[in-house]
Amino acid sequence: MGTSKVLAIMGSMSDDEQMAKCIKTLQEAGVNFEHMVISGHRTPELLQEVIQNTDADVIITAAGMSAHLAGISASHTIKPVIGIPLKSSADIDGRGALLSIVNMPPGIPVATVAIDGGKNAAILAIQILAIKDETLRAWLLAERTKMENKIKSDNLELKARYSDT
Amino acid sequence: MGTSKVLAIMGSMSDDEQMAKCIKTLQEAGVNFEHMVISGHRTPELLQEVIQNTDADVIITAAGMSAHLAGISASHTIKPVIGIPLKSSADIDGRGALLSIVNMPPGIPVATVAIDGGKNAAILAIQILAIKDETLRAWLLAERTKMENKIKSDNLELKARYSDT
Amino acid sequence: MGTSKVLAIMGSMSDDEQMAKCIKTLQEAGVNFEHMVISGHRTPELLQEVIQNTDADVIITAAGMSAHLAGISASHTIKPVIGIPLKSSADIDGRGALLSIVNMPPGIPVATVAIDGGKNAAILAIQILAIKDETLRAWLLAERTKMENKIKSDNLELKARYSDT
Amino acid sequence: MGTSKVLAIMGSMSDDEQMAKCIKTLQEAGVNFEHMVISGHRTPELLQEVIQNTDADVIITAAGMSAHLAGISASHTIKPVIGIPLKSSADIDGRGALLSIVNMPPGIPVATVAIDGGKNAAILAIQILAIKDETLRAWLLAERTKMENKIKSDNLELKARYSDT
Amino acid sequence: MGTSKVLAIMGSMSDDEQMAKCIKTLQEAGVNFEHMVISGHRTPELLQEVIQNTDADVIITAAGMSAHLAGISASHTIKPVIGIPLKSSADIDGRGALLSIVNMPPGIPVATVAIDGGKNAAILAIQILAIKDETLRAWLLAERTKMENKIKSDNLELKARYSDT
Amino acid sequence: MGTSKVLAIMGSMSDDEQMAKCIKTLQEAGVNFEHMVISGHRTPELLQEVIQNTDADVIITAAGMSAHLAGISASHTIKPVIGIPLKSSADIDGRGALLSIVNMPPGIPVATVAIDGGKNAAILAIQILAIKDETLRAWLLAERTKMENKIKSDNLELKARYSDT
Amino acid sequence: MGTSKVLAIMGSMSDDEQMAKCIKTLQEAGVNFEHMVISGHRTPELLQEVIQNTDADVIITAAGMSAHLAGISASHTIKPVIGIPLKSSADIDGRGALLSIVNMPPGIPVATVAIDGGKNAAILAIQILAIKDETLRAWLLAERTKMENKIKSDNLELKARYSDT
Amino acid sequence: MGTSKVLAIMGSMSDDEQMAKCIKTLQEAGVNFEHMVISGHRTPELLQEVIQNTDADVIITAAGMSAHLAGISASHTIKPVIGIPLKSSADIDGRGALLSIVNMPPGIPVATVAIDGGKNAAILAIQILAIKDETLRAWLLAERTKMENKIKSDNLELKARYSDT
Repeated sequence: MGTSKVLAIMGSMSDDEQMAKCIKTLQEAGVNFEHMVISGHRTPELLQEVIQNTDADVIITAAGMSAHLAGISASHTIKPVIGIPLKSSADIDGRGALLSIVNMPPGIPVATVAIDGGKNAAILAIQILAIKDETLRAWLLAERTKMENKIKSDNLELKARYSDT
Repeated sequence: MGTSKVLAIMGSMSDDEQMAKCIKTLQEAGVNFEHMVISGHRTPELLQEVIQNTDADVIITAAGMSAHLAGISASHTIKPVIGIPLKSSADIDGRGALLSIVNMPPGIPVATVAIDGGKNAAILAIQILAIKDETLRAWLLAERTKMENKIKSDNLELKARYSDT
Repeated sequence: MGTSKVLAIMGSMSDDEQMAKCIKTLQEAGVNFEHMVISGHRTPELLQEVIQNTDADVIITAAGMSAHLAGISASHTIKPVIGIPLKSSADIDGRGALLSIVNMPPGIPVATVAIDGGKNAAILAIQILAIKDETLRAWLLAERTKMENKIKSDNLELKARYSDT
Repeated sequence: MGTSKVLAIMGSMSDDEQMAKCIKTLQEAGVNFEHMVISGHRTPELLQEVIQNTDADVIITAAGMSAHLAGISASHTIKPVIGIPLKSSADIDGRGALLSIVNMPPGIPVATVAIDGGKNAAILAIQILAIKDETLRAWLLAERTKMENKIKSDNLELKARYSDT
Repeated sequence: MGTSKVLAIMGSMSDDEQMAKCIKTLQEAGVNFEHMVISGHRTPELLQEVIQNTDADVIITAAGMSAHLAGISASHTIKPVIGIPLKSSADIDGRGALLSIVNMPPGIPVATVAIDGGKNAAILAIQILAIKDETLRAWLLAERTKMENKIKSDNLELKARYSDT
Repeated sequence: MGTSKVLAIMGSMSDDEQMAKCIKTLQEAGVNFEHMVISGHRTPELLQEVIQNTDADVIITAAGMSAHLAGISASHTIKPVIGIPLKSSADIDGRGALLSIVNMPPGIPVATVAIDGGKNAAILAIQILAIKDETLRAWLLAERTKMENKIKSDNLELKARYSDT
Repeated sequence: MGTSKVLAIMGSMSDDEQMAKCIKTLQEAGVNFEHMVISGHRTPELLQEVIQNTDADVIITAAGMSAHLAGISASHTIKPVIGIPLKSSADIDGRGALLSIVNMPPGIPVATVAIDGGKNAAILAIQILAIKDETLRAWLLAERTKMENKIKSDNLELKARYSDT
Repeated sequence: MGTSKVLAIMGSMSDDEQMAKCIKTLQEAGVNFEHMVISGHRTPELLQEVIQNTDADVIITAAGMSAHLAGISASHTIKPVIGIPLKSSADIDGRGALLSIVNMPPGIPVATVAIDGGKNAAILAIQILAIKDETLRAWLLAERTKMENKIKSDNLELKARYSDT
């Protein structure tokens, strides 16, 4: 384990299906993490306290609906905050959450990733941490190679699938 | 002046064009108000302090873009919070701000009014205050009568306009 | 039971799945309520009669599609009207209903809550009634404490869930 | 002038820019009309009274924002009601008004035309009236011929415009 | 059976689930109808031939995706054409079909009803035919009474449902 | 001039601002063209006649609002039809026109280009014609080189612009 | 088999459900094809190599989410590139993918077809190839006849379905 | 000047109005930067070469319309790539560009900021660089203090503005 650390916060327990993809990637890269559920609206003081006292280098948040969690987190820190917009029953395509997370006012950015993009939030955090951590750069390069190899084996499978038609 | 009071907060000075319509209506109804500019993201602690210590009965907020001001305000109080979504350059139709303000999680509602709806935010605040203030009920009824009379005089104007065609 | 009262109207029987969440919260808070199904379009005169004669302090409406129920109700009263936009087959994300309810003309506001936001409509009504009812203020504060405690126990559950990975 | 008659209602005086296109077409076709401004929300009783007592065969309405005017009119009559969605500051593309007008519940339809489609509302009313009025059928056919001839002359102009390039 | 007649066209056999609601209402009202499947794009000449030779008074069309069926039909006749926008896999909310049907150019209107609004297309056709057919006016009024009675019995059911809570 | 030919049709004279960009590019590439204004709705028979009798290899159409011109053209030919969606007052972002043009039913495609994308419609037509015309391939390659050179000179300008800051 | 050839590329193996419809149509028309899975983002160099070295006349791409595959392909060739926008979990209606594919900058067009429109991508490719291949023109005409006959038999089925009601 | 460096790329010269806000902030923070115009589609090989050879730590891109610039850049590097979605004539609200930039496939994230959010792209880059650069952390904290002081002076101005009403 390196010394880099990520704080991953989600707005409610039901968001853990998405956040789990994020955590899994952080674990694979050997990045330390803390994983919490904190509501920006129901527990604003807990959020402020956790954000202001964390020793993490990067903060990842996942939230749906009005999705203020990323923005409120960003208001309490100068560390990079990554936001994952989640789909929900009140916002079936997740575009409300996306706009709420991405359109931050000048001065307080949130680094927004894809709707339900838990894995990419982790990759982005690792890319940021890799600025000062050579081990993570190596891990990222290895992941790229794995992705290339996957495409090559997919093409073999595809060729087999269509060879008889 | 009665004893009812409204706290009106906007996210930046450029929002005052819309907020001014709200303030004007509060003044016409004789409602006490405090009018401030507070950014939920740039001054989160000031926002918390003002919301938690205000003696206002109702809070009105106006914000555009990610528009978290209403939701953050609502997280710090059990008083009714009214949200006005504003259009902006990053959200030209204001629908991102609308979704961000209206789709609050269960437990922490925001009473959302029309996009750029400064006047209706004031009317809604007065309707809420009128629950315990008979004078405001009378003012609201008088406003309805004025609106009806306006429609009647508009019809006379319209008849005149088309009488020659 | 206090003396505060809410009139809850929905546009059709199929809306009761959402309205039930609203009614349940009103019951938990000990607020008197009347619960009806009235169509703004199919029974406009019944709607007018009920709205103009109710002794309720606040009116909650739930409707989907063109969702005029809230606006028509507001046209017949100066009491606060809360609107819940509902998703429907003709408006699968509920955004048509949301825009129809929230964008009321100046003078006749509707306090709009989240799409399918039955519970928050009740909480908002209770916040409004709490302006003149100290018991409801106490109930609202107790709800906030419950929500905070829920987040704390959720974090314990989360820690347990990830402790073995 | 024939005996057919159209009642044209708009929600506010500022809608007359669009409604004027409608009225002009009705005049050209020789259709009797009454032209009024009535707000569905600010003057609901006037609207009901006018709709229920009109001797018009078809009703045309034009409204923006929440745009309930067409639906409320339709709730008070079994005559065909045509709705023109208008763009507005709170609904810059007019799609909120469109969805509010078109997605009426089963049993109470509104015949919706294009956003800002004042002229087509008139044409549609004339097509409906032409069911029992042969003169209007002749007028409609003549209009089609005019439109064809306009295209032909446009092509001559176009050929001239590009002949030198 | 009266002498009024409706031609109902849908773009493909898979649209009959929606069109069936339309046909059922026409049958209940005793309106003569012809029911066909014609693609505006795959069989443009058949469409032109059928539209130009029909003895129907009103034409109803139902189509999804690019949904040109209503507009092409309207280009071949001066009779009222009603368009039903349908949802589809390529247009999951039906709003593409709605915009394609409703935003017709000046001179050639389509009377657009709700997304998947088969029943209202029939009711609108009957309202149009009722201009010259007193029997249909009586049928429409009877339908309104039925709808009112349904709401009344729904309220009894609702009262029973909540009486024990 | 080669033997390849394009037929360019627009729905109304007001679309010529966009179509002019298309024509200019065709001229620069030395492609023969015919340029007409034909409304799919106001002159359906003229459209059918022109499409079925043209000796052009590719058809380009530009239309806004319901934008059926491309689809109707495609229904009358098996030649490639390119559609340019145009913005309009009733469809301010052009997305209604885009969906109407692109979502064609299986069997009758339209090759859709960018909203207001007159130039790209011409380039796409030239790419198609280049399948059998070597001269056009050479022209296309030369255009690519011009675009690259433009970027290079832009970078020099940019460097100059910021050199003093 | 003729000498015309299509290169069909999809962004991931999960896109093969849509691409299979495309391939099936190419096979039915007797068009040679190569079918590959290549990610524009995960294997950019493979994509460039394949596009620049293919002997295909037309390139078809299918991709969802950010859907850059078509545009990147078009940047590496002057051959016609057809893009199929796909729906995905992060873009449930496919409109993000559609806008990403269709709104290409001047100079580098992509011929965009319907969301999930695999079959039409194939038909469009065949229409393009038919410019220099008379056999494909005959195949396209035969397909049109089949579609017309299908509509005729559908009408017989429909008549039978409703004959007893 | 520190040793941290940012590469800022925009898709065309017309994007410099937005990019200038980004550059200005980088300059104020004393961050080294390189500022270029490179089109992902018109100069794909230049883009690849610049991205793969830059010694910058973070890459900022700004693009509108199909907006592939960020994604293509990210495909050529494991460094953090920030994307600024820009409004354009073909995408008037910038939401097409936003979706194209943010919804990247798993493995290749882009850190997306607000539509037209040039300043926040710079702040986010500085927050990322601050992970290894204490001077930038001090700069960021000073900026926060400036923003707070601005709000305080704004409130004085506001109080003065309304003191006479």
